[in-house]
Amino acid sequence: MTSPLTSPTKPLRLALDVMGADGGVDTVIEGLSRAYKNGVTAHVTLHGREGEIKTALASRELPNDHISVRHTEDVITMDEKPTGALRRGRGSSMWSAITAVKEGEADGVISSGNTGALMAMSKLQLRMIPGIDRPAITAVWPTKTGGRTAMLDVGANVEATATQLVQFAIMGEAYFRALTGKDKPVVGLLNVGAEELKGHELIRTAADTLRAADPEMAFAGFVEGDDITAGEVDVVVTDGFTGNISLKTAEGTAHMLADWIKEALTGSLRSKLAASLMMPALRELKDRMNPSNSNGAPLLGLNGLVIKSHGGADADGVAAALKVAQNLAAHPFGDEIARTVAKVEARTASSTEGAAAAE
Amino acid sequence: MTSPLTSPTKPLRLALDVMGADGGVDTVIEGLSRAYKNGVTAHVTLHGREGEIKTALASRELPNDHISVRHTEDVITMDEKPTGALRRGRGSSMWSAITAVKEGEADGVISSGNTGALMAMSKLQLRMIPGIDRPAITAVWPTKTGGRTAMLDVGANVEATATQLVQFAIMGEAYFRALTGKDKPVVGLLNVGAEELKGHELIRTAADTLRAADPEMAFAGFVEGDDITAGEVDVVVTDGFTGNISLKTAEGTAHMLADWIKEALTGSLRSKLAASLMMPALRELKDRMNPSNSNGAPLLGLNGLVIKSHGGADADGVAAALKVAQNLAAHPFGDEIARTVAKVEARTASSTEGAAAAE
Repeated sequence: MTSPLTSPTKPLRLALDVMGADGGVDTVIEGLSRAYKNGVTAHVTLHGREGEIKTALASRELPNDHISVRHTEDVITMDEKPTGALRRGRGSSMWSAITAVKEGEADGVISSGNTGALMAMSKLQLRMIPGIDRPAITAVWPTKTGGRTAMLDVGANVEATATQLVQFAIMGEAYFRALTGKDKPVVGLLNVGAEELKGHELIRTAADTLRAADPEMAFAGFVEGDDITAGEVDVVVTDGFTGNISLKTAEGTAHMLADWIKEALTGSLRSKLAASLMMPALRELKDRMNPSNSNGAPLLGLNGLVIKSHGGADADGVAAALKVAQNLAAHPFGDEIARTVAKVEARTASSTEGAAAAE
Repeated sequence: MTSPLTSPTKPLRLALDVMGADGGVDTVIEGLSRAYKNGVTAHVTLHGREGEIKTALASRELPNDHISVRHTEDVITMDEKPTGALRRGRGSSMWSAITAVKEGEADGVISSGNTGALMAMSKLQLRMIPGIDRPAITAVWPTKTGGRTAMLDVGANVEATATQLVQFAIMGEAYFRALTGKDKPVVGLLNVGAEELKGHELIRTAADTLRAADPEMAFAGFVEGDDITAGEVDVVVTDGFTGNISLKTAEGTAHMLADWIKEALTGSLRSKLAASLMMPALRELKDRMNPSNSNGAPLLGLNGLVIKSHGGADADGVAAALKVAQNLAAHPFGDEIARTVAKVEARTASSTEGAAAAE
């Protein structure tokens, strides 16, 4: 397969919703500027309030032939409910940016706005991939071994059936392949490992289905919370409730440890001296711990590429999300997901019929 | 209320199951020795194979007038299922140590053995506190602000009903009060916070019940994964599936960051020099990250104190578990749990009747 690092042959086109980020339009445009300095080559259409966009563009050097602006007046606020966004949001930058993907004018959309609204609007305009019930949000984690793990769902749905967990596994596998070029990503199902607990019934059913109906998948079976960062699996599958809590637990733990390190390094004069000596190593450490570097999470399962950038992301985070969008847009994997889901459904159905016939 | 740091007026008696730890009897006895050096004053009865115990005792200085031995031949293995342990385990060290609590010969039991077996045997011999459906396992986390947070359940049950979450909250509150002396521990219910997700129905029911039926509790409502280490709440309530995954996620994240710090400190000669300069600060950091310091988790909800020590704990971990056991044994909180649960049940029932009468 093609490595995601090769340049695409046709120029890619991205739709960027510039409204809705905590840092405002200026942070998003600064992120775009950094993205272009960092290897992004796509044509980007900016959806949002033209006046604010022009002001932000004026103070920066940008490849103007790569940029166009689509003016929209409305903005989806962070506290707007998905149903309200669908009713009132047709004139918004978010809706407009998604429409660009629907109409084939863009290969992907990036938004820092309200996640629930983004999901609802994307489902309505782009529709789900055949065979996929619900979208899932992914998060990319760093690992001990210097690699990455993709986890899904981290918050699109609070619950998931066994069938939906199987769909998440298939989507996660295709996504990780497109993201990294790894031919056979290793997939694990998040569970508890204690001897006395076998986990939820539905997780066991999902595991059995994957083993039986998708033998081509490098399926590692059950993994536990500490396996997410261990580097042995590439894709960790769970429901959005558990995934969201696990992700936030890791963020909280990392913040606490970063605070402790800071304290350890500034406690005494001796520590301060040592800290100044090791500044280069500490900067690298800080870089590895920086969440901006893993910003940009696709909503998987849609007929089209939709990338959620964290609302609180800084300009580097926005740049990272644009880079993820370009990489994924160059290697569309929606068809692959549809094919694998259809295959798994057919095999599951025939094995059920076989079992019924044998009775 | 009495601070848990005051010395108990009557000598406490603990039952220590010395079998089943990964490090063997010797690690457990070394832990006992360190516990006595670290302020433990209880009389401890050692349950297990007398020969191995005597060998381990012989090479150490211990307050022999505080120690007695109860010989048992059988050992519950780590892969024994709870049902098997109940059928075949009556001659085991674990059973014998729990019996000591049941018979009033000990104020608490500490075991490093198989958690499922410990739970099943404790339920059978000690029975549940009236009004509590199921035991819960707790874990104590460090926080950013230098304090501690207790989380439950972290693995005794894969699922929990709204009523059981309410019971966990009541147990966690009483436990934290006994552990730290804090009069009004702040209790939070673990949930996802994203705008579009309101979390599981049963978590919302549990929150409503706590607000209405236990207004004396300092109930903070919903908290998220990153609040566990933030230091704003003292007790975090969740089901055993989510709790176990959250706990292991934090462990994995901490290991990964510790590895990164180690790499950063040994990369260049310059870093190595810096690391040697800041050794004292690093030792303190290592100490804060050491899981041994928070070893010793009670199984809450039983008529009697049962402390689970991690199977892989080192001698310092065993010593920490003994200290926790002594602190908690000095401040029994089972009656308090029973009273609070009864009060909440009565109020919930009367408000339901009131609502029915109003219709």
